[in-house]
Amino acid sequence: MSMNEAGGAPSLGSRRDWPDDFPVTGAWREGDDPGSRHFLELQRPLALEGGDVLDEVTVAYETWGALNARGDNAILICHALTGDAHVTGGGGGTYTPEGWWSRIVGPGAAIDTDRYFVVCANVLGGCQGTTGPASINPRSGRPYGSGFPQVTNRDIVRSQACLADELGVEQWFSVIGGSMGGMAVLEWAAMYPDRVRSIAPIATTLAASPQQIAWSAVGRLAIANDQWFNGGDYYDQQHGPANGLAVAREIALIHYRSDQEWVERFGREPLDRLDRFDPWGRFQVEAYLDHHGKKFPYRFDANSYLILNRAMDLHDIGRGRGGPAKALARFTGPGITVSVTSDFLYPAHQQAELAALLSQGGRSCSYHMIDSVFGHDGFLVEHDKLAPLLDEFFAKVRVETA
Amino acid sequence: MSMNEAGGAPSLGSRRDWPDDFPVTGAWREGDDPGSRHFLELQRPLALEGGDVLDEVTVAYETWGALNARGDNAILICHALTGDAHVTGGGGGTYTPEGWWSRIVGPGAAIDTDRYFVVCANVLGGCQGTTGPASINPRSGRPYGSGFPQVTNRDIVRSQACLADELGVEQWFSVIGGSMGGMAVLEWAAMYPDRVRSIAPIATTLAASPQQIAWSAVGRLAIANDQWFNGGDYYDQQHGPANGLAVAREIALIHYRSDQEWVERFGREPLDRLDRFDPWGRFQVEAYLDHHGKKFPYRFDANSYLILNRAMDLHDIGRGRGGPAKALARFTGPGITVSVTSDFLYPAHQQAELAALLSQGGRSCSYHMIDSVFGHDGFLVEHDKLAPLLDEFFAKVRVETA
Repeated sequence: MSMNEAGGAPSLGSRRDWPDDFPVTGAWREGDDPGSRHFLELQRPLALEGGDVLDEVTVAYETWGALNARGDNAILICHALTGDAHVTGGGGGTYTPEGWWSRIVGPGAAIDTDRYFVVCANVLGGCQGTTGPASINPRSGRPYGSGFPQVTNRDIVRSQACLADELGVEQWFSVIGGSMGGMAVLEWAAMYPDRVRSIAPIATTLAASPQQIAWSAVGRLAIANDQWFNGGDYYDQQHGPANGLAVAREIALIHYRSDQEWVERFGREPLDRLDRFDPWGRFQVEAYLDHHGKKFPYRFDANSYLILNRAMDLHDIGRGRGGPAKALARFTGPGITVSVTSDFLYPAHQQAELAALLSQGGRSCSYHMIDSVFGHDGFLVEHDKLAPLLDEFFAKVRVETA
Repeated sequence: MSMNEAGGAPSLGSRRDWPDDFPVTGAWREGDDPGSRHFLELQRPLALEGGDVLDEVTVAYETWGALNARGDNAILICHALTGDAHVTGGGGGTYTPEGWWSRIVGPGAAIDTDRYFVVCANVLGGCQGTTGPASINPRSGRPYGSGFPQVTNRDIVRSQACLADELGVEQWFSVIGGSMGGMAVLEWAAMYPDRVRSIAPIATTLAASPQQIAWSAVGRLAIANDQWFNGGDYYDQQHGPANGLAVAREIALIHYRSDQEWVERFGREPLDRLDRFDPWGRFQVEAYLDHHGKKFPYRFDANSYLILNRAMDLHDIGRGRGGPAKALARFTGPGITVSVTSDFLYPAHQQAELAALLSQGGRSCSYHMIDSVFGHDGFLVEHDKLAPLLDEFFAKVRVETA
């Protein structure tokens, strides 16, 4: 059971193939290659729901296709917790072929970039170009770190509304997103019902449940417990809380997939049969988790992870609005929501409740179940099953709300 | 977001009510009050499944009631991961009224100590008196720490068989246990089929699934990532990996309960409404997790947690025996198994498979479902629902195997 080297660089020990040179942060920073990102600098301070004010806000975003003359073909995609604006390749700037929803968005795809003007913005509090904890605080000239205020999905959506203004989009044809992205979709319907023609909140919830909060909380604890966390002020240190972030990522990954998938994929196969009776021997499923855990700190910032997880926990569409029904009463357009059979992180009953609520008062919200072993990630992975549902929905929106 | 004090004592920060004086280990150590424990020192070295040998082994145990003249009234209870031999009060030595199964075991209870001779031993690798990583290694005169070999449920059962010899129990009337305890129950049936008249493996599995391994693995990572872990050699340090152990405990607790229970119990209530938009503000469910997380290092040892979690991952009743059916073929007695509806850690299909297998070849294994919101912990909490099932089963065993 020999592992950590006490007092040394953060390392989970020689038995694991973790690097000992994790970056301090995986955040994109000014001066890095912008790739296909565009940047909007808001012209005034952004007042946050919690009472704080961000003096300067930059929103990083990408677009595909073009806004038509009537301005009625714009679709906003809201990314999930660890996503970013790079939904698919072919945006402006540097061409990169793959994005997190490449099979759903593109020329001729369900979200057809030949037909629609497609927009995705990195969320406020994130780490891929939009203002977040790793950004420079104009008041101090140094990264915010522990000084970054808590943002909510409502703040995120307000920043996206500024982007819509900038892009000349008065009303989105649709706002779509899964998981945390679906929370923003619901907030768009609550906050700007006239600016949204239809909504597609997928694999998401009206309010985070106690179990969802709990899973989020243990990930935060794993980060806070990292010896290099330093309360969030780690940007000028030799190391950041990358090991803690990796552990948080592994915890989350378990909830993004399902046992069914892993039984088929890994079973109980050990990585190395000779290590079977070693305390630090690993099964293949562990090596899979470690593989993804150790990749994560290269592309994400621990403070953004903390802030956005907490934003998800704070998600409650009815908070301060007299409950969810009142919150969404002013949105009268069509909706669609989708569950994945094996999703135990955002279980089907949450989307069923959402669909039922959005079907009240003569409205319509179709509800679909994707049969899949991919758990919560089903909305990202099962593009062949999701695409026809979106195709049909968008066709209906075009006709019914024309 | 001000929290950790860099370089100081392990602490999750001022916003959490965690102590900064966690013990180095929560293990019971020689010289501490033995309470109602008895100790058996094995008279020869114990060879382990993995090839290592423990030169000296002590088994800490408790008993209730008395072995009858025919020697046919002994019940062995196998505890779960963080349990110990103190199933209930009223054992030998210091009287303590509460145990982890007080409502199931006692005079007149389902496991009636007026009728049965009841035995429970702390598992090998544990930390409550039986030899484990915090014990003194006779070869070095210092605690084993990183030098403690990986044990398996088969090793645990072998040590329990030595205890049975010592106590004069040739055949157990029944061997019963839930979760990890249920794994030992199955191993008793596989290893010593003639010494077991009936078995009651509850809320357990024939083999740990990849998802179960994954949940176990992230808890281990949280411990390994603690700055005070030092590869397992922390007993002579100022601090142990208590924060990491607490995080592992919180991760596990989520899987021991259910969202249904927490929706009813906590909903989305914040601990303090003024902290709502603070990144480190907590919901009540988080305060509940932290309460249990911070208690845990006072009664458990991080190395034992690692060793026993890995032992559970290694659990596969069919390993090296030609599969589960062959492994259990020699056990012909009656069995009972029980699922809890909301248990997603050891889901019902695992007990259904177990019951089906133990019903092959003219054998009988009854299968029951307890309707409960208490998740995996249902087998500990729902004593009013479990007790009648055990009553009925034991009556059947008395008649059918008389």
